[in-house]
Amino acid sequence: MRQILAIAIVTMVFSSFTGCGGPEVRRCGSVVGLRNEKVAEYKALQKAVPPEVEELYKESNFRNYSIYVRQLDNGKFYLFSYYEYVGDDYAADLEKLSANPKMREWFKTTDPCQVPIDPQVRGDWWTEMEEIYHLE
Amino acid sequence: MRQILAIAIVTMVFSSFTGCGGPEVRRCGSVVGLRNEKVAEYKALQKAVPPEVEELYKESNFRNYSIYVRQLDNGKFYLFSYYEYVGDDYAADLEKLSANPKMREWFKTTDPCQVPIDPQVRGDWWTEMEEIYHLE
Repeated sequence: MRQILAIAIVTMVFSSFTGCGGPEVRRCGSVVGLRNEKVAEYKALQKAVPPEVEELYKESNFRNYSIYVRQLDNGKFYLFSYYEYVGDDYAADLEKLSANPKMREWFKTTDPCQVPIDPQVRGDWWTEMEEIYHLE
Repeated sequence: MRQILAIAIVTMVFSSFTGCGGPEVRRCGSVVGLRNEKVAEYKALQKAVPPEVEELYKESNFRNYSIYVRQLDNGKFYLFSYYEYVGDDYAADLEKLSANPKMREWFKTTDPCQVPIDPQVRGDWWTEMEEIYHLE
């Protein structure tokens, strides 16, 4: 009994120090263009993300994943994503995720809606932004 | 002893269902322009946010607050912020925060670096974006 209590308390205290994702959490903010004529279509797609895709994200150690949309002062729309990566090999998990047939099928529906910020950079579809501040 | 154990376990189970911020968490994504000639200055400011300002954010129920920067395809820089509001009166907390002298002093240093997306909207310095997807 005492052991269980001790484990429970240690877990709670530890969580309060490290936030959601434990000490290894990596907070990723990314951006990609969204074609003006595809805004409604993309929103509809994001309302019905296939459960297999969501399962893959979770298996690949993605947590607390949000996507926002906004039209900026140049008249174009952009998507901003935020997620926390809680695994210990981000590159490997990303590669595995991208190679999965279900995920590739999903990207085939979402990619035509998007315009990468820097098309010269191959493989950099969503552009990772620089984190310049964080407060727990 | 049993009571403490029960509370500990209930808290852990509850947290695992609701994520970081409890059932009331509000995830806010916002955007504001950053003057190209002020990028270095703003980054330096964010590296040395006054402790009183950080304390005020926490007291006002802001958690897990990150700011990202990125130059977009129109050549301009933008700041993107993400935070979780864990209180139960967002409008009141925001108003209290904005009225605080320490915070007003801080905004006097950061505001000249920024350009609101829609200057017509008074009081909408950072523009809140629309959340179109979330995965716990």
